Amino acid sequence: MRLIEAVPNVSEGRRSDVIQTLTDALASGKEIELLDRSSDSAHNRTVFTLVGTPSGLVDALLALFDAAVDLIDLRTHQGEHPRIGAVDVVPLVPLDRADMPICVSTASRLGNAVAARFGVPVYLYEAAARLPERRPLESIRRGGFEGLAARMRMTSWRPDFGPAHPHPSAGASAIGARHVLVAFNVNLDTGDLGLARHIARKIRASSGGMHAVKAIGVRTPRPDVVQVSVNLTDYKVTPLHAVFDAIQDEAQRHDVAVRDSELVGLAPAGAMLGAAAHCLRLDGLTINQVLECRLPR
Amino acid sequence: MRLIEAVPNVSEGRRSDVIQTLTDALASGKEIELLDRSSDSAHNRTVFTLVGTPSGLVDALLALFDAAVDLIDLRTHQGEHPRIGAVDVVPLVPLDRADMPICVSTASRLGNAVAARFGVPVYLYEAAARLPERRPLESIRRGGFEGLAARMRMTSWRPDFGPAHPHPSAGASAIGARHVLVAFNVNLDTGDLGLARHIARKIRASSGGMHAVKAIGVRTPRPDVVQVSVNLTDYKVTPLHAVFDAIQDEAQRHDVAVRDSELVGLAPAGAMLGAAAHCLRLDGLTINQVLECRLPR
Repeated sequence: MRLIEAVPNVSEGRRSDVIQTLTDALASGKEIELLDRSSDSAHNRTVFTLVGTPSGLVDALLALFDAAVDLIDLRTHQGEHPRIGAVDVVPLVPLDRADMPICVSTASRLGNAVAARFGVPVYLYEAAARLPERRPLESIRRGGFEGLAARMRMTSWRPDFGPAHPHPSAGASAIGARHVLVAFNVNLDTGDLGLARHIARKIRASSGGMHAVKAIGVRTPRPDVVQVSVNLTDYKVTPLHAVFDAIQDEAQRHDVAVRDSELVGLAPAGAMLGAAAHCLRLDGLTINQVLECRLPR
Repeated sequence: MRLIEAVPNVSEGRRSDVIQTLTDALASGKEIELLDRSSDSAHNRTVFTLVGTPSGLVDALLALFDAAVDLIDLRTHQGEHPRIGAVDVVPLVPLDRADMPICVSTASRLGNAVAARFGVPVYLYEAAARLPERRPLESIRRGGFEGLAARMRMTSWRPDFGPAHPHPSAGASAIGARHVLVAFNVNLDTGDLGLARHIARKIRASSGGMHAVKAIGVRTPRPDVVQVSVNLTDYKVTPLHAVFDAIQDEAQRHDVAVRDSELVGLAPAGAMLGAAAHCLRLDGLTINQVLECRLPR
């Protein structure tokens, strides 16, 4: 059976006991392997990365929903990152590009089960979207949990599965299928949130910036550090180092230094090798030149 | 059975039919996999990378010696890279650091067989060396093939296996055990060989430069391009990007630009990720954050 990846984002990044319970729920699944967990307390959000068979992932993700609907209450949740639900978003990602149809059908199957079992409304997004205006995740998430009830009263925002109103505590969920992306945050040595937002606007595709770049400016736990939080949806179109350089250049134009960066979850090898090749002038470096990637499996 | 790596360097980088015959000899081995072949016409040298069981590698490497002794004549060989033999050097490399003793014993076994079957004298080097002055490969290779006969008349340079004189056409071979290294060439936009040699002297450990760096300045096929050819024996001690930056900085001090770089053979993932982390300010990036390296085997 083909393996696919799932990267559920859950609206809890602070309470370690809750994060552990959610982790245990996911990891108890069969035919899956939990590869990574990244919690961010400022975002108040945890991103899990797992691979498995489509059926194994559906079962593990339903166990995650079960625990999250029980333990997370969006009415009291605060965090820097946009969100509409306890299990805010679940992208399914093909490890082989040809497996996108499997991810699309798995998203539907999961969405149907989530609505039926937990009464949580589900929107299908990106490659799994059934309406073009639901392809971009950010349009589903616009207004956040706080604006959700009003929005869902519009006929155009009836969910793909489940009731036409938010779950009281767990909100709604976006479940979709997309290609692998790089989630990447750049921290700036300044407390000026306006600058982080300015840079995010400047680089993101939706404002005429760089192709395949989504970006927002957010606060961090440190009052003297703000962050440009980036999703790079195609590192072959826009290399990761080009995004980093653009952020650094614009920050420097405002006399602000980059403090450091961080990956959220896992990144594809190609994105990292592209940065190494750029930095070392190794034109044409490929994963085939990396010893560990060539060892017999 | 544990797998180890072998990286035989053969003194032929120009005649494609000979290179193909050598490749076929290696690749016909059992219990081995040929991962890479890098030929350089200026160096007149080909570097093979293979992994396999110790026995499988010994058999495949003896087949390589058989073909190389037959097809390569050092008396007419010309090339930029130092060399003493047809199969110039064969490092055996543990994929798990704990397997160095296996590599040392495999080097002995191979050296003994090479001397017995082909009459080629063999020097054991690095971790396999039996005398401290034979640890550094460059001390075994000093004077090259051309100086070999005179040198071998000294009692102190009796080989570890085989006759106390060079094989007439195939010279001698260095067979050793060492940890993984990065073989890396930086091409400079100048025909000034003196500058490449100056930079090599400046950065290499033996002249008081950077730890774990070996470097020479050599010509390339292009008269307007010279090369700093680097072996970085421990990228954890000196990061690859630090070597690159040092070369670039010194070249720039002489108003010369770096043209590009090239890897010879394969590089360990850690060296590439170190460069990516440096360039993206991703402190603490590890191979565990690279998706492809985490997929179930």
